[in-house]
Amino acid sequence: MMTIHGMTDSGNCYKPRLLMALLGLPFRHVEVSFLDGGTRQPAFTAKNPNAKVPLLELEDGRVLAESNAILCYLADGTSYMPLDRYERAVALQWMFFEQYSHEPHVAVRRSLMRYERLADQATPARMQTLLEQGNKALSVMETRLAGTPFLAGTAPSVADIALFAYTHCAEEGGFVLEDFRAVSAWLDRVRSLPGFRPMLPD
Amino acid sequence: MMTIHGMTDSGNCYKPRLLMALLGLPFRHVEVSFLDGGTRQPAFTAKNPNAKVPLLELEDGRVLAESNAILCYLADGTSYMPLDRYERAVALQWMFFEQYSHEPHVAVRRSLMRYERLADQATPARMQTLLEQGNKALSVMETRLAGTPFLAGTAPSVADIALFAYTHCAEEGGFVLEDFRAVSAWLDRVRSLPGFRPMLPD
Repeated sequence: MMTIHGMTDSGNCYKPRLLMALLGLPFRHVEVSFLDGGTRQPAFTAKNPNAKVPLLELEDGRVLAESNAILCYLADGTSYMPLDRYERAVALQWMFFEQYSHEPHVAVRRSLMRYERLADQATPARMQTLLEQGNKALSVMETRLAGTPFLAGTAPSVADIALFAYTHCAEEGGFVLEDFRAVSAWLDRVRSLPGFRPMLPD
Repeated sequence: MMTIHGMTDSGNCYKPRLLMALLGLPFRHVEVSFLDGGTRQPAFTAKNPNAKVPLLELEDGRVLAESNAILCYLADGTSYMPLDRYERAVALQWMFFEQYSHEPHVAVRRSLMRYERLADQATPARMQTLLEQGNKALSVMETRLAGTPFLAGTAPSVADIALFAYTHCAEEGGFVLEDFRAVSAWLDRVRSLPGFRPMLPD
């Protein structure tokens, strides 16, 4: 059975949990968090020198880092990885957008509001910049989702998993999702997928 | 023929030019730069609402954004995209690492030193943080490349193109490449690939 080393409250770590639930894949979860220094322990950095979660560990001990690369590995050969060459590249386009233009603003602002040990980094100027950049990312998604039900096209893909993770909890970072109607409707579409599981247990 | 909309001096825009040269693919280059506002012109944002280059335009007019997604599209079906499922995911792991942990530090520090219109953002505190984070990214590469000739394994892949782009010019951002011996040897291996072209014309 595969193991996910991850922090339950992290959207990046939620991504593989959500996809494995949608695909019906069993997995073992090992809690590792940056909040208590777990990601900087030698036993963990031996597995991921970049000291980040999530980390996927295969049954044979091989490991894979980077949440979106893990999604691509898990989705390979399933309906969540588009078969068409262009559509597959479009899914990747949205995943790289997520890591460069969305997560560093939408997710980071949430972290600064949510985790007490980061509170001293939440200066007014930084919070304002993160708000503007996060809203810009949500607007780019809004433009896309006004014209297509899922990010890569007509069917749900890894791109939707990658962007659902921090968009669905963006309000915890002070973003107003009702300002983004197409994004909100898309969030509901993802929540309706068979096998969907929420980030945190009820 | 495909068209690359891009800025010649940008490493992100160099990535598709380099891969197309290595693959022997002809292309048309259209210069679009953020420095003169070109990426914010309506004619360009109609093609890429995220207002960034590079942008690949296919012969039929379809477009693709995000440099690393463009690399994956171009490499699909060639030796630069590993056939093995795990190795392909490892290549993607390094490409997501590039966009999250490398480019925002190594490339951004170079931009702040190189482009006069960004100079007011180059505060001593920011430059120091970028130096530390960039060196951390280079150390993660060093650890990997001490044990394998190319990032995804024994053969060159899209991951090497993605990370060559801003690593080869990291000294323009104040990084000292001779401190990273395995990285330096790898840069030479990439430069020796048949069809290699430099970022800027001689």
